[in-house]
Amino acid sequence: MNTGKCLIIGCGGVASVAIHKCCQNSEVFKEIMIASRTKSKCDALKEKLQNTTTTKIHTAKVDADNVNELIELINKFKPDVVLNLALPYQDLTIMDACLATKTHYVDTANYEPLDTAKFEYKWQWAYKDKFKEAGICALLGSGFDPGVTGVFSAYAQKHHFDEIHYLDILDCNGGDHGYPFATNFNPEINIREVSAKGSYWENGKWVETEPMEIKRVYNFKGVGEKDMYLLHHEELESLGLNLKGIKRIRFFMTFGQSYLTHLKCLEDVGMTSIEPIEFEGKQIVPLQFLKAVLPDPASLGPRTVGKTNIGCIFQGVKDGKEKTYYLYNICDHQECYKEVGSQAISYTTGVPAMIGAMLVMNGTWNKPGVYNIEEFDPDPFMDELNKWGLPWEEDFNPTLVD
Amino acid sequence: MNTGKCLIIGCGGVASVAIHKCCQNSEVFKEIMIASRTKSKCDALKEKLQNTTTTKIHTAKVDADNVNELIELINKFKPDVVLNLALPYQDLTIMDACLATKTHYVDTANYEPLDTAKFEYKWQWAYKDKFKEAGICALLGSGFDPGVTGVFSAYAQKHHFDEIHYLDILDCNGGDHGYPFATNFNPEINIREVSAKGSYWENGKWVETEPMEIKRVYNFKGVGEKDMYLLHHEELESLGLNLKGIKRIRFFMTFGQSYLTHLKCLEDVGMTSIEPIEFEGKQIVPLQFLKAVLPDPASLGPRTVGKTNIGCIFQGVKDGKEKTYYLYNICDHQECYKEVGSQAISYTTGVPAMIGAMLVMNGTWNKPGVYNIEEFDPDPFMDELNKWGLPWEEDFNPTLVD
Repeated sequence: MNTGKCLIIGCGGVASVAIHKCCQNSEVFKEIMIASRTKSKCDALKEKLQNTTTTKIHTAKVDADNVNELIELINKFKPDVVLNLALPYQDLTIMDACLATKTHYVDTANYEPLDTAKFEYKWQWAYKDKFKEAGICALLGSGFDPGVTGVFSAYAQKHHFDEIHYLDILDCNGGDHGYPFATNFNPEINIREVSAKGSYWENGKWVETEPMEIKRVYNFKGVGEKDMYLLHHEELESLGLNLKGIKRIRFFMTFGQSYLTHLKCLEDVGMTSIEPIEFEGKQIVPLQFLKAVLPDPASLGPRTVGKTNIGCIFQGVKDGKEKTYYLYNICDHQECYKEVGSQAISYTTGVPAMIGAMLVMNGTWNKPGVYNIEEFDPDPFMDELNKWGLPWEEDFNPTLVD
Repeated sequence: MNTGKCLIIGCGGVASVAIHKCCQNSEVFKEIMIASRTKSKCDALKEKLQNTTTTKIHTAKVDADNVNELIELINKFKPDVVLNLALPYQDLTIMDACLATKTHYVDTANYEPLDTAKFEYKWQWAYKDKFKEAGICALLGSGFDPGVTGVFSAYAQKHHFDEIHYLDILDCNGGDHGYPFATNFNPEINIREVSAKGSYWENGKWVETEPMEIKRVYNFKGVGEKDMYLLHHEELESLGLNLKGIKRIRFFMTFGQSYLTHLKCLEDVGMTSIEPIEFEGKQIVPLQFLKAVLPDPASLGPRTVGKTNIGCIFQGVKDGKEKTYYLYNICDHQECYKEVGSQAISYTTGVPAMIGAMLVMNGTWNKPGVYNIEEFDPDPFMDELNKWGLPWEEDFNPTLVD
């Protein structure tokens, strides 16, 4: 029997959405503890939410890099599950603490070493046997992408295909914040993503591309026509292993020409550099100064209008016949902001995080070991998406991507 | 009788050219003192030049914002003329020191208050009576534009027109430094110039335009076809008063699309702002930080190839007949660099600065008061231009600007 207790680590934009959603779901989340390095942020959220919910809210200060601190906190609160919404650098310390206390684990993004921009599951998959032996479950990547894209894939495989041969994941943000240039989250991570080489999965191997080399135009329902670019994305690694008969998986994300031009110019002049320069007798990192000049990402919420459209286009065979199938969600920035005080980028990640934690906590998805989200039965997750604000739509005759 | 002593304040790109030219002209410039905030820069130049010239070179440290320091230095060196090649913010303190010591004054750019982007002669013209009473001469704007453009105008008026009705000043830089973005001189001043509203002089009044609103294409001799944009420029103010019968004066400068795109992006994100922001507990002006990130204009010299073409197209009447006349100079970046270690942007300003100082010092242009360059007899200056590296060409049937 579960106790309905969930420890949430992190208190940024995504965590705030997940916490709002837990508090809307008090039957399942009877007690939550919000813990982060900055306790005042946790307290502010508690203050805002506690009179709107029967979920009992606790707060704590914790350094997620410190395993012993984490163990102490878990032992004190005794949650059924730890929902990790801290930085990707901290996945392993939190998994260690879960192991030590035999507590289930859920996250939204795979571990990344602090000093190299490298998305890979190998570090977390290495915990599989230990989690099995401890009889606890780790659910990896329960956001939107990765997350819902894996659930969509499992759902397509279960209900619509004998074999999926081609998968294109399309991530479109049609939001407009009215600034000539601003980044939705930390500009450093934004810039790293765009300037990294792209890659896709084909016939069991990675194919590398130049940064932003492959561009397509797609007409997104609810948004309209947008330029999108092939990027590397972490779920390609697990889906390449878990989808039966898969030949190719690609990931595309939309970027506006103006965004890319601004970014290029800032790069050209050296404003995105992380090498400090001497300025008036002080060492200053240009990118950090740029961050101070740009609008605070948190300030974009109230002014962002438009929708996101994220989904998966599958091509494969069913009963010997070729078939295509498109599963997607459309989410409106302003509606998200009205409901939980964050725009759609945080909302589409925070809601699946809450759902993943719920399914692991109430035993629906409880199997010992370390698993990616597409390794579970997708049906209960698909039901909860419709219930908690991310309804999905399907199209059996979608426009394909070249 | 003059003593052949000139005090040069400033030791940047333009000053370096002027100093090289003074040292080529030792008959006139018997002794010079180079003074700036950073004495080591003056010493380095002295070191480089002293064995190539009979001009005696002194150096000194001076803070050009400090009138008393300036007076002390002038009293010690007793120059015939002070050639001000410091920042435009410092014109008035240097003029004050010249007044106090009864020393002639020459500069290349009009005074600008530090806190507003405003080019106007009113502050310097206000010194007219005081300079007259003191029996000393201030020659304002003895660079290329302002400077040679005023000399060209006076020459056209003296020799070719009864009345000049229309004047277009065309400033073309066909140089390529190979950087995605860099500014040819102090980027702060460059950027302030381009992001300010444009304006031209028509029928005794200023007509204001949006920044870069008016664009024309012109085929420049020695360079080829270039986009050029109407800007406000300081000599329009004095030429509007000093050219007989003038109906319209416009100033155009060439800019490449890449330069403008970079500038627009930097403006969009706030990097060209002169409003300080709070950064790590310090007030920092974004534009000043940008300047520190961009390539040092001095580093462009060795890598810039191509030519400049700056001149004036006059339309008016002579002996009752309509007449057009184009006077211009073509200057080669690499040849300048070989001769004086600076590219053409600094060269075309530094040479006229030396010539202006010479004509005031040797009495050719010595009249007490404060004067713009077109108020003097242009002929001796025109001769010196041919002699000192900026030969002019004329065209009696030029293509006109719409």
